[in-house]
Amino acid sequence: MRSKSMKESFSVLAQMVLPMQANPAGNVHGGEIMKMMDSAAGVAAQKHAHTNCVTARVEELNFKKPVLVGELVTCKSQVIYAGHSSMEVFVTVESEDLITGKRQIALTAFFTMVSLDKNGKPSPIPPLTYDEDNAYEGKLYKEGEKRYKSHNERKS
Amino acid sequence: MRSKSMKESFSVLAQMVLPMQANPAGNVHGGEIMKMMDSAAGVAAQKHAHTNCVTARVEELNFKKPVLVGELVTCKSQVIYAGHSSMEVFVTVESEDLITGKRQIALTAFFTMVSLDKNGKPSPIPPLTYDEDNAYEGKLYKEGEKRYKSHNERKS
Amino acid sequence: MRSKSMKESFSVLAQMVLPMQANPAGNVHGGEIMKMMDSAAGVAAQKHAHTNCVTARVEELNFKKPVLVGELVTCKSQVIYAGHSSMEVFVTVESEDLITGKRQIALTAFFTMVSLDKNGKPSPIPPLTYDEDNAYEGKLYKEGEKRYKSHNERKS
Amino acid sequence: MRSKSMKESFSVLAQMVLPMQANPAGNVHGGEIMKMMDSAAGVAAQKHAHTNCVTARVEELNFKKPVLVGELVTCKSQVIYAGHSSMEVFVTVESEDLITGKRQIALTAFFTMVSLDKNGKPSPIPPLTYDEDNAYEGKLYKEGEKRYKSHNERKS
Amino acid sequence: MRSKSMKESFSVLAQMVLPMQANPAGNVHGGEIMKMMDSAAGVAAQKHAHTNCVTARVEELNFKKPVLVGELVTCKSQVIYAGHSSMEVFVTVESEDLITGKRQIALTAFFTMVSLDKNGKPSPIPPLTYDEDNAYEGKLYKEGEKRYKSHNERKS
Amino acid sequence: MRSKSMKESFSVLAQMVLPMQANPAGNVHGGEIMKMMDSAAGVAAQKHAHTNCVTARVEELNFKKPVLVGELVTCKSQVIYAGHSSMEVFVTVESEDLITGKRQIALTAFFTMVSLDKNGKPSPIPPLTYDEDNAYEGKLYKEGEKRYKSHNERKS
Repeated sequence: MRSKSMKESFSVLAQMVLPMQANPAGNVHGGEIMKMMDSAAGVAAQKHAHTNCVTARVEELNFKKPVLVGELVTCKSQVIYAGHSSMEVFVTVESEDLITGKRQIALTAFFTMVSLDKNGKPSPIPPLTYDEDNAYEGKLYKEGEKRYKSHNERKS
Repeated sequence: MRSKSMKESFSVLAQMVLPMQANPAGNVHGGEIMKMMDSAAGVAAQKHAHTNCVTARVEELNFKKPVLVGELVTCKSQVIYAGHSSMEVFVTVESEDLITGKRQIALTAFFTMVSLDKNGKPSPIPPLTYDEDNAYEGKLYKEGEKRYKSHNERKS
Repeated sequence: MRSKSMKESFSVLAQMVLPMQANPAGNVHGGEIMKMMDSAAGVAAQKHAHTNCVTARVEELNFKKPVLVGELVTCKSQVIYAGHSSMEVFVTVESEDLITGKRQIALTAFFTMVSLDKNGKPSPIPPLTYDEDNAYEGKLYKEGEKRYKSHNERKS
Repeated sequence: MRSKSMKESFSVLAQMVLPMQANPAGNVHGGEIMKMMDSAAGVAAQKHAHTNCVTARVEELNFKKPVLVGELVTCKSQVIYAGHSSMEVFVTVESEDLITGKRQIALTAFFTMVSLDKNGKPSPIPPLTYDEDNAYEGKLYKEGEKRYKSHNERKS
Repeated sequence: MRSKSMKESFSVLAQMVLPMQANPAGNVHGGEIMKMMDSAAGVAAQKHAHTNCVTARVEELNFKKPVLVGELVTCKSQVIYAGHSSMEVFVTVESEDLITGKRQIALTAFFTMVSLDKNGKPSPIPPLTYDEDNAYEGKLYKEGEKRYKSHNERKS
Repeated sequence: MRSKSMKESFSVLAQMVLPMQANPAGNVHGGEIMKMMDSAAGVAAQKHAHTNCVTARVEELNFKKPVLVGELVTCKSQVIYAGHSSMEVFVTVESEDLITGKRQIALTAFFTMVSLDKNGKPSPIPPLTYDEDNAYEGKLYKEGEKRYKSHNERKS
């Protein structure tokens, strides 16, 4: 199986937040954003594995600022570590006030996605490579690898 | 501020999963369940704090089995640790096949919720007590306290 | 077919009401609550019959107080009378203001549900028993039986 | 207050049923149709009273045939009896298979709607007249009056 | 194939606009109305062709006035020109303020719909006739024919 | 008012298409995609004008291929002509099969958006510049100008 680069799975989901997505306090329902992040993690995983992929785990999902109705929300995702049949996807959410043009990171999280074959069993995925000259990619990969291995040790 | 017991914040959300909540593979979209868990965490936090509460962080969200369209999904939440203005809420999701009656834990997660006053600033919450004779409550409290303090140390 | 008790079909659906469920006047759209009651009636019927069940009739659906956005709505249902292939389900809706903790009954109704086999034909359901020492269960059963028989007479 | 005829409140809501409105068995979720009927009752009541109107009661809601995804659903409503501040609205739902052109009555129900003033208090509504030469209108009016008075007696 | 009149495909969709359909500025999201128009065009096309019909093109979709939450929106559609396997449908949207009774045309558009057979290939549709004594129908037909032919020439 | 380049308004919305967005034939409801295009046109217009912008007209909206459930849909928009208070936005929709990686243009359209001030009156927008060395931008600008002027002549 040909290895793939981190860039090949880079994905973007984006939407303008509508009033129907508000919580009773008038900001965007956190769960609506989490749902969008889950879709974005799935898109990156599918781009890497070219199979049906499901969410196994979410870690360190942090809300950094509230998202407001009417803002443009852009959700970026990419595979940052790949094991045998599962992979870690880093997801960031950026909100943009379209009147002022101001952009801010609103949330970040790490999703672990599992590749499934047609019978719903875990299936192998391509190895992941990263750009050795890109310190950011290297840092993401090593931290992803650490979380992945630490989780597997806790399970065993 | 009167302290409150763990039981006082215990909350239940439940719904029958509809086809409109499916992902393209036909199971329930993970994001739909995450959205429900986020609401459940908010209800438990509001019951404890009697203020508007927002999500700050989600940790260790684990998918243990897929949820199928037509199943009854019951989401239970309770505050298991309370700091000054934020608290940790444990959320479990149980799915039930209504034809066979079989029930299974489908997801669990820990949500950190922050209490806000009318100006959107963090506001104090009641202390949390737990039943000293209940080993399960004690375990949840101590693990919640540990995650809470470990997170605060990493930030400082 | 083993008879089942009224308690075995007792079911709970619950959700926090979101702005997307409001009517133009800002309260919750009555139809949203009716939809939730219909699901709750279906869950109780499925728990009793362990078959696919559909709604045949709704009677005495009364709105006792408006439900407000942000309230916790809890919908309880149980089979209170069982005929050959159809049964009557009593559904109550309680709303709770999460800030004050005040709870009120918001709606009640009686749903008649029909059990269907795989070809969509009415299929027999278990007899229903109730706790003879429980005056409330006895009253529900007798009133359900009366409505059921009175409806069948009007049809014939 | 000028009296109004039954015809003046006649209203039509209609939609093509989408897969997102299905229940797990693949037909249309009964609750979706009930929600549409509730809206239709509100439109007829508003046309009669020219005020904000809310649902107080639903009686004799009967499902006569299942509605299928892809069918055109047309919901007709009109005020058939008017009291001091509340009125009874008759709602019928017709489904049409667009390929064969076959139309059938799928549901009927009687909704009691209350007219509210700006403070949310019951407010007077115009008297209702009907066409004395129209036996159908006369029958609806007399039956509506009977249900209305019988309900008020039970309450007092 | 028997020809059909313009009146035979006349269709009505209607809904009361809910807060969940608002855009961030508080009016109805234009896209919600466009979605309703697309459904209405599909209903008229299916009534004419009695086949599955899909949208190929939208022309001259004009917003004449904003639609407000709480208004009754009525969408009328009819086939105004029919080619071999495609047809043009004229769609108008009228909004009504239910308190004042004021009605206004809010949008109009021309949709080109294609009839598909069971394999998803274009399939022939009945010829369209119009009432020669009805100047309005005649004008719609001739303009539809002109747009249809002009579009086909540009393509070839 | 500082002029702005075509690139400054370039915007991307993207989503994975869910089963809840399907039409009865199982493909994506054309209206769902039109709604997304309308949002994308609004985002580009807001980026250019930094005001609230509403849709006035849609022209030449062409469906080139059906969009399937599970595909990634990416909607790109940019202002291609600016008048005094209104502007034309070109919107393209690309669908991507995430398993095969195949991408195709699914729809294109031209939206005319109007900039509104706080009283809902048309408000002036910045002039638009384009890259003189970029033949594609020049072509879009000139065609947009032609459509814009031709429409204004027809109105006067």
